[in-house]
Amino acid sequence: MPIISERGIIMPESPIRKLVPLANAAKKRGVKVYHLNIGQPDLPTPQVALDVLKHIDRKILEYSPSEGILSYREKLVGYYGKFNINVNVEDIIITTGGSEAVLFSFMACLDPGDEIIVPEPAYANYMAFAISAGAVIKTVPSSIEEGFALPSVEKFEELITEKTKGILICNPNNPTGYLYTQKEMNQIRDIVKKYNLFLFSDEVYREFCYTGAPYISAFHLKGIEQNVILIDSVSKRYSECGIRIGSLVTKNKEVRDSVMKFCQARLSPPLIGQLVAEASLSASDEYMLDIYNEYVERRKFLIDGLNRIPGCYSPIPMGAFYTVAKLPVEDAEHFCAWCLSDFEYEGQTVMMAPASGFYTNPELGKNEVRIAYVLNKEDLQKSLIVLKKALEAYPGRVL
Amino acid sequence: MPIISERGIIMPESPIRKLVPLANAAKKRGVKVYHLNIGQPDLPTPQVALDVLKHIDRKILEYSPSEGILSYREKLVGYYGKFNINVNVEDIIITTGGSEAVLFSFMACLDPGDEIIVPEPAYANYMAFAISAGAVIKTVPSSIEEGFALPSVEKFEELITEKTKGILICNPNNPTGYLYTQKEMNQIRDIVKKYNLFLFSDEVYREFCYTGAPYISAFHLKGIEQNVILIDSVSKRYSECGIRIGSLVTKNKEVRDSVMKFCQARLSPPLIGQLVAEASLSASDEYMLDIYNEYVERRKFLIDGLNRIPGCYSPIPMGAFYTVAKLPVEDAEHFCAWCLSDFEYEGQTVMMAPASGFYTNPELGKNEVRIAYVLNKEDLQKSLIVLKKALEAYPGRVL
Repeated sequence: MPIISERGIIMPESPIRKLVPLANAAKKRGVKVYHLNIGQPDLPTPQVALDVLKHIDRKILEYSPSEGILSYREKLVGYYGKFNINVNVEDIIITTGGSEAVLFSFMACLDPGDEIIVPEPAYANYMAFAISAGAVIKTVPSSIEEGFALPSVEKFEELITEKTKGILICNPNNPTGYLYTQKEMNQIRDIVKKYNLFLFSDEVYREFCYTGAPYISAFHLKGIEQNVILIDSVSKRYSECGIRIGSLVTKNKEVRDSVMKFCQARLSPPLIGQLVAEASLSASDEYMLDIYNEYVERRKFLIDGLNRIPGCYSPIPMGAFYTVAKLPVEDAEHFCAWCLSDFEYEGQTVMMAPASGFYTNPELGKNEVRIAYVLNKEDLQKSLIVLKKALEAYPGRVL
Repeated sequence: MPIISERGIIMPESPIRKLVPLANAAKKRGVKVYHLNIGQPDLPTPQVALDVLKHIDRKILEYSPSEGILSYREKLVGYYGKFNINVNVEDIIITTGGSEAVLFSFMACLDPGDEIIVPEPAYANYMAFAISAGAVIKTVPSSIEEGFALPSVEKFEELITEKTKGILICNPNNPTGYLYTQKEMNQIRDIVKKYNLFLFSDEVYREFCYTGAPYISAFHLKGIEQNVILIDSVSKRYSECGIRIGSLVTKNKEVRDSVMKFCQARLSPPLIGQLVAEASLSASDEYMLDIYNEYVERRKFLIDGLNRIPGCYSPIPMGAFYTVAKLPVEDAEHFCAWCLSDFEYEGQTVMMAPASGFYTNPELGKNEVRIAYVLNKEDLQKSLIVLKKALEAYPGRVL
């Protein structure tokens, strides 16, 4: 039998993946599992987007252009303009989800052995895409004690070598919900400029900023226009993760030309998804506001509830729809598995994502979990009760 | 300005891509361009597949499973069974087009520096995916004189080193339309077995075999069940290239487990495309037969016509919907560009793919083009007249 690649072996498995069989077994036992572990919003896709499907009168579902459908890209120019992200249509390449935008930007910018610096905890799949590209992620840890604020410039500089090609940020942040301040973004800009780095900026949650603090896009930073590669996706903002439509936006023509070669190789992004995404941009202000208000309420409800459970602590996330919370346990991975395999309260339990999967250092985040508030308030309330009861019953509880 | 990756520089551009601006300029001048260059069928998507779009009553277009929707994978088991490809549902992973199946199988099986052997001419994007994975493609040339038959076993063995991890075939073949015989497939099996290689087998054109000769799948070969990775796609067979749905099928669990990690990283294949693809499997026998008969007729018509043009020669393709033809020119790339930039006949011209893009050796295929018969017979007829006139007028014609 031929042997698979070293890369195929070291590719990380999703940390949640290990829990899936346990969740399935719990469901088989008749236990209701509250999924606090996933980034799939429960809120509806805009009706205007769903309606598009009913009115596709094409006879052939043919390839779309490798860079995406022109009318959609044109409409995105207007969308970005509303956030003071001033780009031209040629700056925008449509990708198969934000995932492909990350992969292709790594492929185009990073050679095997090249390094990028990422504040952690971080979205676990950045690591997977870096491994796909042979690149190396170096992490600067942020901590729950400091509310996951950006680590100091010095911490970044300590990691910079001649192999360093870029910095990656996610803002608002998955998994922490942190929103970088103007001061922090300026710090990032200064490092990027000083060391001539790429800035990969994943801003898929820009719609979900809950405090008065402004959303600062990497595109708002002066003097690094040629360094910025924006990663974007419609998945979260229109609750249409399944259509797999994202985008890669950059003013750097050399990067675009290179990314386009990867785009041409995979022929085209999904046609129907693009039609849906384009229509979604016409979602009413009312739809967007309803979604926003729903998350605002859930956030308050969840964070208040978490901080009321003895031994639990969550900073107040400023954006996205996640929080990283500290639990009174030594090993959150074990606790999350235990909730699914050994615990139920009135026929219910919770599934959470152990935060260790968002850190590269296995010592960090061991007592933390990521909780997504993608359930309605009633279910969130039940989840909080179940979590409280679980922590009371858990043999490994730390006082 | 930060510097892009070496990989981003060496990634090949599609050879057709260079001609696109010329074709656009021709169209701007009012010239009708017959597109013989593309693999986008002009035939309709099955109605049963289009109808599905009208009946999607989901409120949320959410992530599908990373391995694809179960009901679709189950239905594929039956589909493959009809071709005596006997697989279980867990052997099938749904991918974002056949493209992703190639990329992920390379990622899972090949490390940087690893080599695979591919008979050429070959689909140009295999090279792009190999570069993405850092792998190296070594080619064994087949020739138009021998009708693009499989090169001898010795030619393969000459290339085998300790870095050789696999062989890739496309059967029926893009770009040549060649269909490997049982004897040739046995030769491939023997090499694969002797050197313990992976066999990546792209069989997306299996529906389109026009001679009495049987279609031999890599899955029909005994004794290498753990070596075979089947690359598949619904794009061509149901004329739905835009939905981006393919599959990767293998009995090798280690490969599947590794591929699944790449699948999890990109979250899921397109949801709506899967619904369309699943419905397409219910396309009527009549639909499939109509499509088939249409290609049979076009093939005969095109090949007869080509071989009647003085100095032209095309072997008779046994499958797919392409042929590689020899033209009485020294540099087909120049001729193809000239047809678009300097020639028109009664306000018409042709766009063809220079075959050089399908060879790694720049000396091979210099006087060859790939022609796709994805136009109706009337347009094919006009194209043939235009091609004949163009060759008569071309200053670089070789007698």
